[in-house]
Amino acid sequence: MPTLYYSPNTRASRVIAQLMLMGKLDQVEVVTVEVPRFDGSGRRDPRNPHPEGKVPFLVTDDGEEVRESAAIMMYLDELFGQPLSPAIGAPGRGAYLSWMAYSGGVLEPVLVAAFSGLDHPALTETFRGMDEVCAVLERGVKDRPFLLGDTVSVADILLASPFQWAPHLMPDTPAIKAWVERVGNSLDGAAIAAYEASAMARLDTLKEA
Amino acid sequence: MPTLYYSPNTRASRVIAQLMLMGKLDQVEVVTVEVPRFDGSGRRDPRNPHPEGKVPFLVTDDGEEVRESAAIMMYLDELFGQPLSPAIGAPGRGAYLSWMAYSGGVLEPVLVAAFSGLDHPALTETFRGMDEVCAVLERGVKDRPFLLGDTVSVADILLASPFQWAPHLMPDTPAIKAWVERVGNSLDGAAIAAYEASAMARLDTLKEA
Ligand SMILES: N[C@@H](CCC(=O)N[C@@H](CS)C(=O)NCC(=O)O)C(=O)O
Ligand SMILES: N[C@@H](CCC(=O)N[C@@H](CS)C(=O)NCC(=O)O)C(=O)O
Repeated sequence: MPTLYYSPNTRASRVIAQLMLMGKLDQVEVVTVEVPRFDGSGRRDPRNPHPEGKVPFLVTDDGEEVRESAAIMMYLDELFGQPLSPAIGAPGRGAYLSWMAYSGGVLEPVLVAAFSGLDHPALTETFRGMDEVCAVLERGVKDRPFLLGDTVSVADILLASPFQWAPHLMPDTPAIKAWVERVGNSLDGAAIAAYEASAMARLDTLKEA
Repeated sequence: MPTLYYSPNTRASRVIAQLMLMGKLDQVEVVTVEVPRFDGSGRRDPRNPHPEGKVPFLVTDDGEEVRESAAIMMYLDELFGQPLSPAIGAPGRGAYLSWMAYSGGVLEPVLVAAFSGLDHPALTETFRGMDEVCAVLERGVKDRPFLLGDTVSVADILLASPFQWAPHLMPDTPAIKAWVERVGNSLDGAAIAAYEASAMARLDTLKEA
């Protein structure tokens, strides 16, 4: 079984959402670890083998280490027969790869800068800003329910997640809002919330012990 | 034929290097476009369909648009039978996906910040810095010639390219320097340089016309 290092209410939560949607959560060993949090709680967890102590992190059956949400989500989707992505050579494959790379390569740096009020020419030249991100996402979903067409994919789960997590960063664009809502509706929000709450309770118990 | 939008001496050059190594440069239509450059030369090229006017950009035979070097390089490698990456399910697949996501998701933001002397807690928390990048790369290549083992892959071409392009950012780590040199030696440097020079001359002629 692959091992997923996870912490509740983090970027690792989207991997749990994916595994639940695929019905494969029981086929991955999930290790709940601590991470330092914005509010000063948490700490780097010595049990987490991620080189920088982050989550998500995946160790495969062969002992290969996979970091970055996009890579972990692609790997897990492939491991279980690609239920949530186009096969190599199939229509949508190019768009899929493009969205997965766009997520960490553009969306994340732009959101991090916006979130922290950081504005610097080097960042703007390389990543541009929220206006460009909104234009790209709007174009991606205005004529179709999901980024790759009629059905939800790993790309939707990954790219919609920051807006579910930080609704104040949600662009004021009806097409994008409707898409984020459709992605949310494709997932079992109640089951994810229950899973996260019980993981959080487990961490709190550990802390008190 | 897929169409690659390219400009000489840019992040698109690594895609040319990959196509040459695969022997497939003649099976992609390369459109040479201008981009704004550091020295103030160049400009956004109206012929470039990239939403932000950047290169590289790829349009597939089905009209799908692929942005981000990692996605374009994965797509082209897949299109030609994956000569330079592990197949789905094969050993090295997890590590491959991890390196490809790491490139745009961590290496690029860290290098951009280092290059421009930008130091901000939001960036450090999210991406960490050069020390962590060096540690990760060193661990990746200290016991093997290339990131995935004995042979060069798309991951090597992508991740070594910033250090070939900006040698002053090269970490002072013997294992990393030796790896960048091995990757360089796997490529036909003279053919790439000649290709770039002739593309640059073509752009200059266009400008004078
Ligand atoms: N680009 C990475 C980012 C991972 C990341 O920053 N995770 C946060 C959780 S939201 C973390 O582990 N933070 C703790 C820390 O940076 O020490 C990914 O998407 O996987
Ligand atoms: N993350 C993108 C970055 C692309 C990028 O920034 N390309 C530069 C060339 S080195 C560019 O087109 N710059 C012109 C501009 O930003 O207008 C990738 O790797 O494909």
